Amino acid sequence: MSRTAHSFAPPVMEARRWLAGVEFTPDRPLINVSQAAPVEVPPEGLRRAMAEASMNEADAHLYGAVLGRDDLRAEVAAQWSAAYGGAISAGNVAITSGCNQAFCAALATLCDEGDEVILPTPWYFNHKMWCDMNGVRTLPLPARAGLLPDPEEAAALITPRTRAIVLVTPNNPGGVEYPADLVRAFYELAKSRGIALMVDETYRDFDARTGAPHDLFTDPDWDRTLIQLYSFSKAYRLTGHRVGAMVTSPARLMEAEKFLDCVAICPNQLGQIGALWGMQNLAQWLAGERAEILDRRAAIADGMPKLAAQGWELKGVGAYFAYLAHPFAEGSDALAPRLVRDAGVLTLPGTMFTPNGDPSGARHFRIAFANVDRAGIDTLFDRLAGLGVYEDGGWPLAPKAPNA
Amino acid sequence: MSRTAHSFAPPVMEARRWLAGVEFTPDRPLINVSQAAPVEVPPEGLRRAMAEASMNEADAHLYGAVLGRDDLRAEVAAQWSAAYGGAISAGNVAITSGCNQAFCAALATLCDEGDEVILPTPWYFNHKMWCDMNGVRTLPLPARAGLLPDPEEAAALITPRTRAIVLVTPNNPGGVEYPADLVRAFYELAKSRGIALMVDETYRDFDARTGAPHDLFTDPDWDRTLIQLYSFSKAYRLTGHRVGAMVTSPARLMEAEKFLDCVAICPNQLGQIGALWGMQNLAQWLAGERAEILDRRAAIADGMPKLAAQGWELKGVGAYFAYLAHPFAEGSDALAPRLVRDAGVLTLPGTMFTPNGDPSGARHFRIAFANVDRAGIDTLFDRLAGLGVYEDGGWPLAPKAPNA
Repeated sequence: MSRTAHSFAPPVMEARRWLAGVEFTPDRPLINVSQAAPVEVPPEGLRRAMAEASMNEADAHLYGAVLGRDDLRAEVAAQWSAAYGGAISAGNVAITSGCNQAFCAALATLCDEGDEVILPTPWYFNHKMWCDMNGVRTLPLPARAGLLPDPEEAAALITPRTRAIVLVTPNNPGGVEYPADLVRAFYELAKSRGIALMVDETYRDFDARTGAPHDLFTDPDWDRTLIQLYSFSKAYRLTGHRVGAMVTSPARLMEAEKFLDCVAICPNQLGQIGALWGMQNLAQWLAGERAEILDRRAAIADGMPKLAAQGWELKGVGAYFAYLAHPFAEGSDALAPRLVRDAGVLTLPGTMFTPNGDPSGARHFRIAFANVDRAGIDTLFDRLAGLGVYEDGGWPLAPKAPNA
Repeated sequence: MSRTAHSFAPPVMEARRWLAGVEFTPDRPLINVSQAAPVEVPPEGLRRAMAEASMNEADAHLYGAVLGRDDLRAEVAAQWSAAYGGAISAGNVAITSGCNQAFCAALATLCDEGDEVILPTPWYFNHKMWCDMNGVRTLPLPARAGLLPDPEEAAALITPRTRAIVLVTPNNPGGVEYPADLVRAFYELAKSRGIALMVDETYRDFDARTGAPHDLFTDPDWDRTLIQLYSFSKAYRLTGHRVGAMVTSPARLMEAEKFLDCVAICPNQLGQIGALWGMQNLAQWLAGERAEILDRRAAIADGMPKLAAQGWELKGVGAYFAYLAHPFAEGSDALAPRLVRDAGVLTLPGTMFTPNGDPSGARHFRIAFANVDRAGIDTLFDRLAGLGVYEDGGWPLAPKAPNA
């Protein structure tokens, strides 16, 4: 057995394989709501900043510090201090090659073989994969009302081997924004039990609320408990450049440096230069991006009645995601490849976000709607509603012939 | 305990800390031979290719495939097939975010907690660090004559938990190029025992020999045993872009995909675009780079007599490295920070490349000479020879006062 043999295959890559052999027509193109990623390029100014750095800045091509560029670390610290109302210094910030890598590095500073972390379900699958590969046991914490996890249930799960609780807010895949007092309750729990609280805020820039989404950074000793993760990919359309961040104590970052030195040596320089340019120049543009995402979120809510009439249910919506319960008897894992063929819709089944055999996963789909505008959401819902439901729990449409 | 707590700190970062508080003067600047990295930018054409991609190619900014861009994988396959005389397809190639990451991914496909790998010493420290962090036991295989490891000794080390033998050729830190028949002997050993042979060829482009450095790829079933690692950083001066490769079986790459999806999602796109441009346009330029490195290597040999007169000994030289035995009674780990102050030379002690307590490490320094021209190597050797040796095994120079 190898470490990788303990884990399932990457869901996004697996889903892409369902497309093989299926043809789509211009009047009925594929609607891809499988991945939470911008599909348009960054604004021209950012692209130009990277291009000019490539031509004119020597350090854009050379090794940098393992924990990232000083200027970007300082910018994150300054903007975070203002946004969260806390004292965050550049020494609290590490830049990583994407937010997934920040999670991996954080886990390496927390856990050894056989240790445990608490993951609310539905979970972000890369968190689960990495735990599996690293001999870290995951303790699933089931979503309750509003797709929210319960701190009291989490408290009951903690054992002497538990090292951390991991929250994702706004949530992937559920979309829900965890209320500030809920995040605080998890923080107090973690602090009182001497474990870490990881809060993955990849989608923070698309939170519908104004102001700080939680007050954890206002605690003078926040960095003894909190590990915050962030991605520059969504806000600035930098998915292809791999830039993320981890915000925690300098002591933990010194440990993380060992891990990052081995898996990355340093984050790539041009991506960091682009991220810094974005932070310093795209605040207003980003506000517009957020408004557009919030409008698409509203479109999901607006369109739900026609889906609800077919037995679908909206369980959570926010940031890039809607989490939908479907009306079919079959499980979402069997239905997902059929949705590609019969509805021209690529989406990930809830089974990819839940423990094996968890019945909740089989009931749901994650709709990553960020790339679909109002009209597209309308079309998407028409196609899903058009599947109908038979009494036997299937849907009436036969698989379409190619080019039909 | 955490995974990172099992490992020592990154040597290159630790060495940089020795510079703190030491001042250098224009007439006696620091000679930094601590890291194997180009310090000049890539040729203008490559920088322009990346700049133009940033401005004009949408996919330069978007997520790509976990295992890398198809065009770059195909180019590696084609050039490798020609260079090594074997059948290597694009499906045998994965692009990674640097060669270190290729090693990490390969290990994850091979080992579980408590498994073992054989590492010849002196070893490349990131290999050792990663094994330590991942609960993989390292079996040191001491260098023998000419800094070469002995396959028969390796055979005697193999246990039921041994999963791989790791070779680095041309060697880091030793500089030596392993003879083709030695590499073949290790391959036959690994194959006969059903374990993997990893061959890290980061420095292949600076091998002094012409033709293929080994014939392993000519075996029809090479990919059942061989995992070759490569870096684009040295050849094309892309250290700041993080691009490496792993060449092995498609089945192993499918396993590696799980690991890479978690730690990277995909290699950054601009770096891959630069690497491809380099492979397609810089062959002649690279030949010139190689000639320059070989001249510096010759300069090391030429300069040795004056160092040998002070009791120094050249144990290996090649690619970017010379491995020097020093004449002092004290260990290299204690001497290295003093070399910064007393000789203005930053170099890594052999203790960073050997097991704790191994007396061989204390006797050596690694000189990464790639960035130092003939004149610089002369100056470097003058400074080292100028330290002299006292009867008590120390050296005569007192620490320099700042700006003295």
